[in-house]
Amino acid sequence: MSDNPTDGSRRDLLKGAALAGAGLAFGLTPNASAAQPAHVEPTELPLPASAAATMAGVPFERRDTVRVAIVGTGLRGRSVLHELLGVGNVRITALCDTVPDKVEMAVQQMQKAGHDYQPIRFTRGERDYERLVQQGDIDLVYTATPWQYHVPVVLAAMSAGKHAATEVPAAYTLEECWKLVDTSERTRRHCIMMENCNYGYNELLVLNMVRSGAFGDLKHAGAAYNHDLREILFENKDEGLWRRAHHTQRNANLYPTHGLGPVAMMLDINRGDRFDYLVSMSTPEFGLSRWREAHEPKDSSTWKETYLTGDLNISLIKTARGRTIRLEHDVSSPRPYSRINSVQGTKGIFEDYPARIYLEGQAGGERWTTLDAHKAKFEHSLWRELGEKARSGGHGGMDFVMAYRLMQCMREGLAPDMDVYDAAAWSAPGPLSEMSVARGSAPMKFPDFMRGKWRETRPSM
Amino acid sequence: MSDNPTDGSRRDLLKGAALAGAGLAFGLTPNASAAQPAHVEPTELPLPASAAATMAGVPFERRDTVRVAIVGTGLRGRSVLHELLGVGNVRITALCDTVPDKVEMAVQQMQKAGHDYQPIRFTRGERDYERLVQQGDIDLVYTATPWQYHVPVVLAAMSAGKHAATEVPAAYTLEECWKLVDTSERTRRHCIMMENCNYGYNELLVLNMVRSGAFGDLKHAGAAYNHDLREILFENKDEGLWRRAHHTQRNANLYPTHGLGPVAMMLDINRGDRFDYLVSMSTPEFGLSRWREAHEPKDSSTWKETYLTGDLNISLIKTARGRTIRLEHDVSSPRPYSRINSVQGTKGIFEDYPARIYLEGQAGGERWTTLDAHKAKFEHSLWRELGEKARSGGHGGMDFVMAYRLMQCMREGLAPDMDVYDAAAWSAPGPLSEMSVARGSAPMKFPDFMRGKWRETRPSM
Repeated sequence: MSDNPTDGSRRDLLKGAALAGAGLAFGLTPNASAAQPAHVEPTELPLPASAAATMAGVPFERRDTVRVAIVGTGLRGRSVLHELLGVGNVRITALCDTVPDKVEMAVQQMQKAGHDYQPIRFTRGERDYERLVQQGDIDLVYTATPWQYHVPVVLAAMSAGKHAATEVPAAYTLEECWKLVDTSERTRRHCIMMENCNYGYNELLVLNMVRSGAFGDLKHAGAAYNHDLREILFENKDEGLWRRAHHTQRNANLYPTHGLGPVAMMLDINRGDRFDYLVSMSTPEFGLSRWREAHEPKDSSTWKETYLTGDLNISLIKTARGRTIRLEHDVSSPRPYSRINSVQGTKGIFEDYPARIYLEGQAGGERWTTLDAHKAKFEHSLWRELGEKARSGGHGGMDFVMAYRLMQCMREGLAPDMDVYDAAAWSAPGPLSEMSVARGSAPMKFPDFMRGKWRETRPSM
Repeated sequence: MSDNPTDGSRRDLLKGAALAGAGLAFGLTPNASAAQPAHVEPTELPLPASAAATMAGVPFERRDTVRVAIVGTGLRGRSVLHELLGVGNVRITALCDTVPDKVEMAVQQMQKAGHDYQPIRFTRGERDYERLVQQGDIDLVYTATPWQYHVPVVLAAMSAGKHAATEVPAAYTLEECWKLVDTSERTRRHCIMMENCNYGYNELLVLNMVRSGAFGDLKHAGAAYNHDLREILFENKDEGLWRRAHHTQRNANLYPTHGLGPVAMMLDINRGDRFDYLVSMSTPEFGLSRWREAHEPKDSSTWKETYLTGDLNISLIKTARGRTIRLEHDVSSPRPYSRINSVQGTKGIFEDYPARIYLEGQAGGERWTTLDAHKAKFEHSLWRELGEKARSGGHGGMDFVMAYRLMQCMREGLAPDMDVYDAAAWSAPGPLSEMSVARGSAPMKFPDFMRGKWRETRPSM
């Protein structure tokens, strides 16, 4: 299905990237000894030839009303719809799902919200999004499908001249990440991964503090998706129908972006720094097997499944400027929810779950305090404006803030807060962690999706 | 100064270990591609020929009174002395320090505690411990010197027929770790690294819970020494005189054992499992440079120093049974103290700083609770017996519990809780993290200090 003439050479390049990653250690072997370790910096990879100009900082066209099509009207799609219906000057022009009933539920939701017009329905099977993207009255195609459809829907949308938004992760192979970048650059359409956690209250408050210099120079951050999903993964509906299958396919961080997106923004990733390489390690798998043992009937088809994903995967990411990130993924263990969401600099440190902060010299000595004392000064303007309305929405309000903000950027002709380079870079730890785990935690290089332009700073959020 | 005939071949082996570590990635290169990652398990290293029988589980000789010599009577040595003076049936027979005044301060401390006899003083320079170990009336030589003397003092003590105890870390090269193991096995004397945190209240309580099966099968643990030492490192006395120098010598986890020892015991390291390999990553160095800039006079000799140690070092350790450990070191940043001290299993999770626990199905849903509800059932017997007396001592009481327990083992003819294999394994992340960081986070293999006997379980603590 590729329509990109450079795909062949790119695929070779991807193979080269994997080898160069493994070669980090290999290249050092001749000089290596316990007494005199060779200090060698990881080398830059050759870059693919740029197919077109960058999409970084490219503004949307101004428009009075944003016309949105939603592909995937299951739980998440209808939640997204709910947020969009709460934003003014948005028109839902098309809906698509393989299950017609789910589309009708979305239409009823629209009508309850006073949107008394009919969106066009696309319910003719799993490739019907290909017809949808040809429709004229669409500015943005928003995919809230199972993960495996994110890339095809987004590529089709951009190729048909529509901006594209996707739920997370945008992609889970490096080849797909590159396809998103290439297609966005070639078509001059934005590809935005809707990382709602970038709009979380604490995340945006701490981002403001980082930018004010409150933490000094940053050196480290922590990120995670640690969320006990065992019951959901075994349900006979919704995510249980497709998400568990990923656990049978790879031993990796399956879902890296919720924790990583916010700290990537704090560390100016793709805005002055970039992810350089990672190492990754997984625990054994226990969680899904034991859940099945305890809860699944003996004739369940789940007994044919073999779960490959280690319960806890931890990756360490090194950035080009030498900073480090700890990135965790655990959806198979009994444990309280955490995205870690920590950031550390020369003047202080913040950690979340529970939220706690220490800034050098604060009253009371080197002890954690709450964020309360910083809210007046550092609460983000989006939350100050929208907070009351947002909190009635999904995920504590971040979903509404995100929807509002994207619609605002599209109406006012601003560049999006997050672009295709963020979608690719934040998704890449998925495949890179798989490669590193399979190679006994060997370092794996990130592709430079911005082809060197990550060195340029730019305003955002 | 080596007296071990196998040193030459061992040194070759160590070099081999480093290469094999780097080769983890190299060996995979021919099959590596982004599409089909090669699944290869790290291979076992060849083992050095065993010089003598294991020291695992070897009991002390019974004795009524334990005769202790202390080498190094600075801050730490006098603190150790204070704890030993609080234990019955202990006699301090010799004291050694390069500074005679520090020995006299220790003698006064003894007399205040009612020990009205004279220990022999050894104050003739930095090798005077070599005379001390020849003295007859010593059962245990305890070294509380700066790090660089730990290995020479301990080797001299064991070679002279004395048991040896050392402050942490026991060693900071792999070669030294092997020397400790070889010498302990050859001389049949114990070498005990006095990891006080293994006797912490929370650590022992959680160890009891682990052993009861409360957490199910363990899969992960976290450990750290995150302690802002900047002011201490720049003092013109005590640790400031020698400890800062290590930051000019290597980029590594300089001090791995305080967090690692307790979780190693929970994971049965050297008692059914062992450390297999690690990867390590450091942030840039900011902390000591900035502290110097802010606090040191312009004519201070510290301006000649270059600090190599990254502020935060994180290592990921894989065990032979596949479990993982996150290990951190940060002594150069403004931040609240933490040893992390976390453990995670199939049925629950504990994290410290602040102490919080979740066990599957506990009341209130998947939320952290305190340890309070578990104290009645799982408080360790050592704390139940000694708690009130211990808490008046150093580091919240763990120092007294540790001193009491070693003296108890020596008097009653028990095997020590921790032995030379623990000293070597818990210290090894120091040099291995240095090697991994220097090689762009390449995986480095741990030597098998127990030569295969780690597979055997045994009782302890």
